[in-house]
Amino acid sequence: MKDLRSKINDIAKRRGIFWNSYEIYGGVAGFYDYGPVGANLKKNLLDLWLEEFVYRDGLMLIDSPVIGPEIVYRASGHVDKFADFMVRCKSCGHAFRVDELIGEFVEIPDALSPEEMNRVIREKNIRCPDCGGELTDVEEFHLMFSTRIGLDKVGFLRPETAQGIFVNFPLLYRINREKLPMGVAQIGRAYRNEISPRQGVLRQREFNMAEIELFVDPEERFDDSRIEDVELPLLKMDGEFIRLSAREAFEKGIVNAYMAYYMARIMRFLEKIGIDTSRVRFRQHHREELAHYSKDTWDCEIELSRGWVEVIGIAYRGAYDLEHHMQYSGADMRAFRKFKEEKIVKRRKIVPRMEILGPMYKGKAKSVAEVLEGMEAPEEKVELKVEMNGSTYTIPEDAYDIVEEERKVSGERFIPHVVEPSFGIDRLIYAILEHTYYEREDSGYKVLRIPPRIAAVKAGVFPLMNRDGMDTRAREILDILRKNGINAYYDDSGSIGRRYARADEIGVPFCITVDYQTLKDGTVTVRERDSTEQKRVPVEKLPDTLRNLIEGRISFGELDAHVR
Amino acid sequence: MKDLRSKINDIAKRRGIFWNSYEIYGGVAGFYDYGPVGANLKKNLLDLWLEEFVYRDGLMLIDSPVIGPEIVYRASGHVDKFADFMVRCKSCGHAFRVDELIGEFVEIPDALSPEEMNRVIREKNIRCPDCGGELTDVEEFHLMFSTRIGLDKVGFLRPETAQGIFVNFPLLYRINREKLPMGVAQIGRAYRNEISPRQGVLRQREFNMAEIELFVDPEERFDDSRIEDVELPLLKMDGEFIRLSAREAFEKGIVNAYMAYYMARIMRFLEKIGIDTSRVRFRQHHREELAHYSKDTWDCEIELSRGWVEVIGIAYRGAYDLEHHMQYSGADMRAFRKFKEEKIVKRRKIVPRMEILGPMYKGKAKSVAEVLEGMEAPEEKVELKVEMNGSTYTIPEDAYDIVEEERKVSGERFIPHVVEPSFGIDRLIYAILEHTYYEREDSGYKVLRIPPRIAAVKAGVFPLMNRDGMDTRAREILDILRKNGINAYYDDSGSIGRRYARADEIGVPFCITVDYQTLKDGTVTVRERDSTEQKRVPVEKLPDTLRNLIEGRISFGELDAHVR
Repeated sequence: MKDLRSKINDIAKRRGIFWNSYEIYGGVAGFYDYGPVGANLKKNLLDLWLEEFVYRDGLMLIDSPVIGPEIVYRASGHVDKFADFMVRCKSCGHAFRVDELIGEFVEIPDALSPEEMNRVIREKNIRCPDCGGELTDVEEFHLMFSTRIGLDKVGFLRPETAQGIFVNFPLLYRINREKLPMGVAQIGRAYRNEISPRQGVLRQREFNMAEIELFVDPEERFDDSRIEDVELPLLKMDGEFIRLSAREAFEKGIVNAYMAYYMARIMRFLEKIGIDTSRVRFRQHHREELAHYSKDTWDCEIELSRGWVEVIGIAYRGAYDLEHHMQYSGADMRAFRKFKEEKIVKRRKIVPRMEILGPMYKGKAKSVAEVLEGMEAPEEKVELKVEMNGSTYTIPEDAYDIVEEERKVSGERFIPHVVEPSFGIDRLIYAILEHTYYEREDSGYKVLRIPPRIAAVKAGVFPLMNRDGMDTRAREILDILRKNGINAYYDDSGSIGRRYARADEIGVPFCITVDYQTLKDGTVTVRERDSTEQKRVPVEKLPDTLRNLIEGRISFGELDAHVR
Repeated sequence: MKDLRSKINDIAKRRGIFWNSYEIYGGVAGFYDYGPVGANLKKNLLDLWLEEFVYRDGLMLIDSPVIGPEIVYRASGHVDKFADFMVRCKSCGHAFRVDELIGEFVEIPDALSPEEMNRVIREKNIRCPDCGGELTDVEEFHLMFSTRIGLDKVGFLRPETAQGIFVNFPLLYRINREKLPMGVAQIGRAYRNEISPRQGVLRQREFNMAEIELFVDPEERFDDSRIEDVELPLLKMDGEFIRLSAREAFEKGIVNAYMAYYMARIMRFLEKIGIDTSRVRFRQHHREELAHYSKDTWDCEIELSRGWVEVIGIAYRGAYDLEHHMQYSGADMRAFRKFKEEKIVKRRKIVPRMEILGPMYKGKAKSVAEVLEGMEAPEEKVELKVEMNGSTYTIPEDAYDIVEEERKVSGERFIPHVVEPSFGIDRLIYAILEHTYYEREDSGYKVLRIPPRIAAVKAGVFPLMNRDGMDTRAREILDILRKNGINAYYDDSGSIGRRYARADEIGVPFCITVDYQTLKDGTVTVRERDSTEQKRVPVEKLPDTLRNLIEGRISFGELDAHVR
């Protein structure tokens, strides 16, 4: 399996999918570049994601800054809780994540206290993986990148795009005309200053996310007819693994309706982007594993050469984030829930008696009365104290009445709950590469069977030979395709077979060859990557035909009928 | 004009285009959120940019990290030179950019030394704009956001996406099979820690860029037939303003061919995205204004309510960046230029005479001879010195010969030059809003005449009334549009007139109304934003029709013929 990994990494670097950044300076761990093929693959993947998860469901898309002021990440809990435990080697100075070092000895490393971690390291005699040296005691390492805004304001690079959505809840709720459920999506970079990242693109310090925060009224029932009929592979917290339909999983109470809905949608999405869904599972977090904000989390894991890797997470964040931002900012982060019918609410209320307060407090009496009115009425009449501008005013029993009042109330304010499907885009891209990679049985040539819809480059245009006008015609065709918005390239180097092989290696789904017949009858051959079949298509129908093939409106098998 | 600005800002916040970030915490200057309308507008704008500038010309797109290690920005010159001059108020402590304070008194503030700036401030008695207090002496303020990578490595947030391209030149050149010109594009965030940003979205600390680095062989002539026939408004460094075609501007030597090519392409692009090109000009930088890396820069400026604002820059960066990265990294950042025909190169060469060196330097003789061979041959035979491992070895005249050698050379290595069109996406978006805004003559209703291709939301779907099945039918149609990839929304609140007005305000180009006739004959009305005309379209033709209208394949006037 390591073999597959090195094959993918080799293609990735040689052909421009991704590579470790800043190579000319020796590279910096945890940072990757997407080359021309990777950047386009990523763009196409995100476009499909937007279409499937955002536009189709009518969610709101926003785009907030990466840098946030300290208070935002105090409120979110990240300043206090977003840390890993690390040890350093006393000889070579290298630093390591403790959970990775003790992972083979302890089932849930995150559940241990620092003392327990130290004990495991000593008892199991764990030493520096790089030089065998002795390790220091466990210390905490904060995972946010920090910086300064302006002259002296502390700022952090966001560890998730989510907080940019939460802090905007009041505005977004208003723009959405105060309706729930309200889904808000964001795509962008997020940051995690890993101590010592060693897992290639799977563990980056700067990574790409696509997140959805679905704000819901916890008392309102989700329209479960929307849950699609898809079989889910579920690994429950108790270790039981079951396959059952999303609807059943919801009906049996294994997951809530929102989770079931998104799990089904995710399965369909993974299929569309070329993931082998027989190597996908949803794993429920153990209680000790849950992030500080989460009540229940299911990770969508994909089996890769490194084993099962978390690629997407669905967290039930409850009211955690909005509640905390409300506390820290004082802003009202609540939504309004209308009652089915107006309620009559009885309320006991203080009514000040000015004939007594007036003479007592003179010029201040009015202000004292106002504060008094706002206070909660006591069970029985007692002497009360009004605190105002640092002074205390005593209110004798006879200076007020208690009146019972009836009010019609049409609804109430509450803090919405949040369901968060969160996609790790870089891991998804890597998973696509591993799952679509194969070698042709006959030739051993490498192929990426990436679905046309998300393939980086859609077509290669090849002149059979560089003469008799075939090259000129091929360049014209290239230009036509490009003007029609089809990302295509020109290749006239080496045999047609070599050119096919080069195209296959980066997953180009269609190759167009201009040959002698083209010059006679205006048709070209279109060769499909996976079947290696070829069919002739008239040039004037080529852009439309390719578009239809790419969008999946027709299959290659149906092409003859379509072109005729 | 200030009025226009506040109208745009009002719509922007109320309707979800953009707003100052972190409002619930009092806001942080220089950071903005794109709301649902703004984020989609930005996405569509960038998609069009990709199509026009990247895919159509077959450029490479890459995606590199925001965080870079210190050495990259030492090499690029940013650590030393990316700074502004600031003063603080001795009373209120606020900080200000000096060039903004003295701008009305000095033509090119950037050309002054700190002493000269201090003199202007004293002579003109410039005081704190906020409180009238006295100002401190001028000091330098570094504009890069800095952070730490891992435990202790200094990193910076990129001030431009360009460096991510330059450091990858060797890899990209190889992937491009060593061909020039080679264009590489990148879209992404960049950062500039402004001292005290006060110009709304026009001056942000975190902003969006789209950049192209075109690597060219300075000795190769650009294919100038590619320069489109577009009239350019040029404000030259010497103050002369002229309008002439891109080709003429090139032929008269006012701009080079690459600049002329991109200026023409930019004019066409601006027209497509709704900018009034009569309020566009290209302004050449004065020598003192040029960035440290640039030999010649033309800013594309757009006239806004604040006056002429730089939105796009085209810089001729020469070999500056690659040269510096080659120096700092030791990597070979050169390209290969093949000669038209092989050249015979004569070279005078030192040939050591071992029969003399051997006895002289014994065990060291071989190493000394190797170093000697690598040295440049002197004009005449003289005594030479070889420096090796800290020792000096004297080489008498008779210890070597000078031989003239002929070699065939097929080409030479050189550092490519770079032409850089760099787009400020946030400013472009703001310019679109100002230039497309108008108020209807009859009603005074506000409209954004944003071209359909980039409009955030393409269609509103309205039931005439919430009864007799019109609402159900409207929701079905909404669903059909969404499944066809058309970003649409549903609105059943208030009169149809109010709903049109709400749609106009955010530039929705088409509104679909489901009325009684829909229930009878299956047609809906499509109302076009700018003409306010309405036409009936059968529901089954709606997705295709809208797509054609959005892509500009048909105009609204041609719709009847199309639908029939």
